[in-house]
Amino acid sequence: MEGCKSRLVSSSDLKKKSLATLHTAEPSIDDADRLASLIDTALERYSRFDDGCPSELGEAIRYVLLAPGKRLRPRLVLLASQACGGMMADALSAACAVEMVHTYSLVHDDLPAMDDDDLRRGRPTCHKVFGEAVAILVGDALLARAFEIVATDIKPANYATRCCAVLGQAAGATALVGGQASDLAGGVTSDDLPALESIHRRKTGALISASLELGGIVAGATAKQLDALKAYGQHLGLAFQITDDLLDVSGSQATVGKRLAKDASCGKATYPQLLGIEPSRRRATELVELACSELVIFGAAAKPLANLATFVRDRTR
Amino acid sequence: MEGCKSRLVSSSDLKKKSLATLHTAEPSIDDADRLASLIDTALERYSRFDDGCPSELGEAIRYVLLAPGKRLRPRLVLLASQACGGMMADALSAACAVEMVHTYSLVHDDLPAMDDDDLRRGRPTCHKVFGEAVAILVGDALLARAFEIVATDIKPANYATRCCAVLGQAAGATALVGGQASDLAGGVTSDDLPALESIHRRKTGALISASLELGGIVAGATAKQLDALKAYGQHLGLAFQITDDLLDVSGSQATVGKRLAKDASCGKATYPQLLGIEPSRRRATELVELACSELVIFGAAAKPLANLATFVRDRTR
Repeated sequence: MEGCKSRLVSSSDLKKKSLATLHTAEPSIDDADRLASLIDTALERYSRFDDGCPSELGEAIRYVLLAPGKRLRPRLVLLASQACGGMMADALSAACAVEMVHTYSLVHDDLPAMDDDDLRRGRPTCHKVFGEAVAILVGDALLARAFEIVATDIKPANYATRCCAVLGQAAGATALVGGQASDLAGGVTSDDLPALESIHRRKTGALISASLELGGIVAGATAKQLDALKAYGQHLGLAFQITDDLLDVSGSQATVGKRLAKDASCGKATYPQLLGIEPSRRRATELVELACSELVIFGAAAKPLANLATFVRDRTR
Repeated sequence: MEGCKSRLVSSSDLKKKSLATLHTAEPSIDDADRLASLIDTALERYSRFDDGCPSELGEAIRYVLLAPGKRLRPRLVLLASQACGGMMADALSAACAVEMVHTYSLVHDDLPAMDDDDLRRGRPTCHKVFGEAVAILVGDALLARAFEIVATDIKPANYATRCCAVLGQAAGATALVGGQASDLAGGVTSDDLPALESIHRRKTGALISASLELGGIVAGATAKQLDALKAYGQHLGLAFQITDDLLDVSGSQATVGKRLAKDASCGKATYPQLLGIEPSRRRATELVELACSELVIFGAAAKPLANLATFVRDRTR
């Protein structure tokens, strides 16, 4: 028993040691890669199921979850936690849960009855490979798994319940699902910027903002820190959507990894359409600056979050 | 402020008073009706959303959630809590969450890509009324809402996290979703009772057993009480499925409120097919007796649970 305990302590110390560098150095490409690797390893672990899960379902879950993604939302969780002085190891389960909720929404949004997409993260979409029924179930399983992980692995319990509540709200009828429903219903006219922004605040912004809030919660952030993180997330979420719309009209399908020019072809309103391409770029830059201005209270600990905002504005995929 | 506080206290006392009778009297039809009314009122309250939820989505959520159902699972939550000496008012949010998970699973299972059903709870299915995209989103929103409710309204926090974990596991890839995936994949031969039972344990039994566990958790049940409740739930879950199969071959569609004889028509294995009709009835009776034998440790407080098991065996819908 004593030996077992020592091994556990050593393993934990090792993890802390390997993570410690992330708290000190200036961010670099290297850090982004290391973050992604940390997240991917944890996602791999969380997507193993025991016997009750039929093998094809498990394979389909891993197909969508472990596909090469930007991991923007889980990175935001980890970096928000870091900005508040938390340990990244303590934020990993929240990071994976957010990525699961995001991935479930992509799988369901891609279905023939919804956006009917064939390509996602550079691969055929889930329903193209496994069929519609399995794709629906993959999304359902990912959503349930996200909450199970948060409830099981985040300590103490009051942090876990706050995370579940934030995640449930962000994934639900007034946010992610509501935004997708409004988007599908269409009807945003070419001069109705508030209506377009309302859709994106719910469909994209809410989960991005929730990612930052979860990172703050698990790090024991103060109310003032949480407010700053959420405000950063709201600006960043809109900036992200504008660059998404810009990539939709001017990006490369091979780089972006999904079908492009689809919004214009199905009559959906977009930022470039409403504002023009250059004004959209300027708006994204303004939003990134607004986002970064919220980070001042964190000092140098939030430098990686500031860098991530610039990455969101300049991204090519 | 003082006046406001008094009103709150009075309202709470009133609720306790109206619930108190449920703890004392022998169960009767009246109690079943009162339970259902308690549950329906809470479901109605929990299915109101603020502005972010598009009106059609909200309407569709209420269409499926407030349709006349047996409310078996939420009743199990309330009665399990009562058996452990808990107050029903403290178990209502868990009861509603379980009904939301159950209703989400019905909405998704009924989709054309899954079981392709037109009738549910005596009404046209969600996708027949609102279209497939909305039906998928209704299920997603209900699942997220269930966890939000548990995380927000169950106190203390460690009860809430345990409930979220149990619900997440029961709704996930190794249980409800996994059972549906196995069911859709078919391949249960006419002599493979273990394979059939494995599907039903996951697809139906897991959420029934979780309902009892949730009721126990919110009432502060001991480990021994939780084990007994789960064992009762496992036996009851199988008995429920056998009677479901029996109703599928011999029930009235108008009473049951969904399409019948469908399992045989699409080649799915059923209990009557594997065991015969009379042996299936005997097996259901045995399972109900086994379920009730688990209730002995609760004494008279579990009488309503015993009655509910008999209702499950004798039900006509």
